[in-house]
Amino acid sequence: MSFEEDVAKAHALLQAQAEAEKQDQAQIADPELASAVAQALVEVRKQNPLVASITNAVTMDFVANAQLAIGGSAAMVYIGEEGQALTDIGSALYINMGTLLPLHEEAIPAAARVAHETNTPWVLDPVGIGIGGMRGRILLDLAACKPTIIRGNASEIIALASLWAVPMTTGALEHSKRGLVRGVDSTDQVDDAIAAACALARFTGGAVMVSGKLDAVCDATRVVRVFGGSALMSKVTGFGCSLGGVAAVFAGVADPFVAAVAASCAYKKAGTRAATRSSGPGTFKAAFLDSLYSLDSSEIAERITSIDNV
Amino acid sequence: MSFEEDVAKAHALLQAQAEAEKQDQAQIADPELASAVAQALVEVRKQNPLVASITNAVTMDFVANAQLAIGGSAAMVYIGEEGQALTDIGSALYINMGTLLPLHEEAIPAAARVAHETNTPWVLDPVGIGIGGMRGRILLDLAACKPTIIRGNASEIIALASLWAVPMTTGALEHSKRGLVRGVDSTDQVDDAIAAACALARFTGGAVMVSGKLDAVCDATRVVRVFGGSALMSKVTGFGCSLGGVAAVFAGVADPFVAAVAASCAYKKAGTRAATRSSGPGTFKAAFLDSLYSLDSSEIAERITSIDNV
Amino acid sequence: MSFEEDVAKAHALLQAQAEAEKQDQAQIADPELASAVAQALVEVRKQNPLVASITNAVTMDFVANAQLAIGGSAAMVYIGEEGQALTDIGSALYINMGTLLPLHEEAIPAAARVAHETNTPWVLDPVGIGIGGMRGRILLDLAACKPTIIRGNASEIIALASLWAVPMTTGALEHSKRGLVRGVDSTDQVDDAIAAACALARFTGGAVMVSGKLDAVCDATRVVRVFGGSALMSKVTGFGCSLGGVAAVFAGVADPFVAAVAASCAYKKAGTRAATRSSGPGTFKAAFLDSLYSLDSSEIAERITSIDNV
Repeated sequence: MSFEEDVAKAHALLQAQAEAEKQDQAQIADPELASAVAQALVEVRKQNPLVASITNAVTMDFVANAQLAIGGSAAMVYIGEEGQALTDIGSALYINMGTLLPLHEEAIPAAARVAHETNTPWVLDPVGIGIGGMRGRILLDLAACKPTIIRGNASEIIALASLWAVPMTTGALEHSKRGLVRGVDSTDQVDDAIAAACALARFTGGAVMVSGKLDAVCDATRVVRVFGGSALMSKVTGFGCSLGGVAAVFAGVADPFVAAVAASCAYKKAGTRAATRSSGPGTFKAAFLDSLYSLDSSEIAERITSIDNV
Repeated sequence: MSFEEDVAKAHALLQAQAEAEKQDQAQIADPELASAVAQALVEVRKQNPLVASITNAVTMDFVANAQLAIGGSAAMVYIGEEGQALTDIGSALYINMGTLLPLHEEAIPAAARVAHETNTPWVLDPVGIGIGGMRGRILLDLAACKPTIIRGNASEIIALASLWAVPMTTGALEHSKRGLVRGVDSTDQVDDAIAAACALARFTGGAVMVSGKLDAVCDATRVVRVFGGSALMSKVTGFGCSLGGVAAVFAGVADPFVAAVAASCAYKKAGTRAATRSSGPGTFKAAFLDSLYSLDSSEIAERITSIDNV
Repeated sequence: MSFEEDVAKAHALLQAQAEAEKQDQAQIADPELASAVAQALVEVRKQNPLVASITNAVTMDFVANAQLAIGGSAAMVYIGEEGQALTDIGSALYINMGTLLPLHEEAIPAAARVAHETNTPWVLDPVGIGIGGMRGRILLDLAACKPTIIRGNASEIIALASLWAVPMTTGALEHSKRGLVRGVDSTDQVDDAIAAACALARFTGGAVMVSGKLDAVCDATRVVRVFGGSALMSKVTGFGCSLGGVAAVFAGVADPFVAAVAASCAYKKAGTRAATRSSGPGTFKAAFLDSLYSLDSSEIAERITSIDNV
């Protein structure tokens, strides 16, 4: 298929999404969860939770702007003592493994330990898992601090479950032998990562988000799928990172599962809307931040398409 | 107040600002200052001053783009020897304390010393003051290099006056016991920081900018207040940082007080205009850079709303 | 000339460019090269080449977004072992010398050596050449790894030819005594750097890109000139960096000369189009990424204005 056909297809998709948005009057599968998700957004805007972030240099700006747009306050640091100090005063901590420096080998586990010891919710984004040796050592270290929320693409979630050797069924184990990350891209499908995600959630006692065309959010017993968004979200760097950063904002005001579902719903809703107001990845990113800022709290839970027990 | 009401209020505010912009035919309090401010922008565009920056990783891109949009040239470095070399050839230096690395403990004071010794104007943004110990040590070190312009929010300015123990009246001292920074946010009002700002200005012999709804710019004897801008400026990361970076561009062609007032006027004017051309924080940032680029030099001094002696 | 006249001139220029775009039905000087350039874009979009980047902190986000918009996959790292690991699995490597950290003295040459040893194409952007001593030492080290493509402005290309002491004619040598970089800006014209560029290309066996109003792309025997773009490209940070990053994406699927010409054509075409859809540097950057994303592979070679033998 030529790129021109690809673009034509993308435009057709955008139009379909615009119509889908109008018709999204689907039944909400779980009114209690829907209500908690709406309430989480109301609380974020009321409380303006401060999130401390140790995050990668490529997307720092986008992460901070997404955290501000949704209603939080953002502060990024590198140094160990500063990460610990900020975590101590913040409502939540966000750790993203993107562009590591040598100092991160000490700073990241130190901040995570403060979060764990003070019961401050924290979100881990294991982006880049598999590149180099230091990254693996840090991630192994972090298992003991049990992240409140883990967010990754399918390959990253499978690779993390495998690295941490969380108990899985044989079928799940087979899938987890894949988890081949290609740079920062997934080579696996979201559905292939559900077993690994649930196993991670049972291990941490928190929530796990698998990002993809349909997002999946798992805890120990449930999988929620969230639809919408736009193909352009994979054509702009940082949509995954900033989703993790926004999940940390929500985790400052809501329980891990609700926070993760709320963040995913907000992203899918804002992405769907932004696609109708942009003509490519550059204008899409700006329109996305606009949409995130002006989301109606009552509308984001519409993005939940199914809830299953596992 | 719900977020929806908040958004409605924000829209009402934007509309009011748009009208305010049309009606801004106010008397200029000080024609000489107004003329110097206009001239400063003309000179920036004529001379294209090169500013060396040691600045934080979150907003580097925004700082550089704002410096280019106003008419300057931008170069960012980390390493001590490079900061010194660039300061030596540049028209001004900008130092922002945002996301410190261990190397900054040596690099920042070294560049500031070169600026001080070569009479190169330099701007200090003490963002994050209060987080961790290294930040405080560097800031203490910088007092001796007497920054030409200091820019911060109210809490940061109060905290810096307190850290440097600049002489203040009892009333001012009382205020200065506050200065509680929350991450990178202010918990104080601009008016509460005027005494601290003037005390800092007497100490450095330069100018001090306090950013807020109304900006205040002080030197040893005067306070100018500058109005306009948009509530969206606090919903995008880097408006404070890039204002400091733009003040450094102006400091390359004008005296400290005029440079600080000109930067503040340019930001308030461009912010007011951008608010009428955007639908949220994403499009606002792009519209702001457009507005900064196309400012008319004769119009920015309109933003001065009062000049008081202290 | 006042800034207001400058803006009026810029607008007139934008209008002229819009008309130029309509009228660009010029004869293509070399149908074979034009066809190879078009094919390179088709292949990028088909193969989605992964590029490993060690690049500066100011423009990382823009580099990654440009690489994604053109059809590649982007991954940025700092640490030596990670740069080597990513280079090993990637289709190409991009090295930009912008904001150096001490670790780069080891990390950059190590990644370049892996690229050289594994015949992975790699692109060097010697931005900031001349600032500090470490930068010069790293650049000297890189000569032995013979970059597949070098991209810089005229002053940077002249300075690199001089630093590497590549053999040049007397006339060229005279020019190369200039190469005075001012921060990150060129003080020389593209035409003044052609001899240095060709000398570098003879030394590396690859291609050299000189960016300016007209881009020049050289190999050992040819100079291609590429026209278009917009004056706004010099008012936004990172257009040079991201052009190098996009050249690396093309180098993952095409030979060095074709890759360099294709990247330059894509930038000039997208820049021309974006100028007609923007009102200043902020909206221009977004419109540029949109345009890069939706380029028609058959139209970019139109930007070639001449091919000369040297």
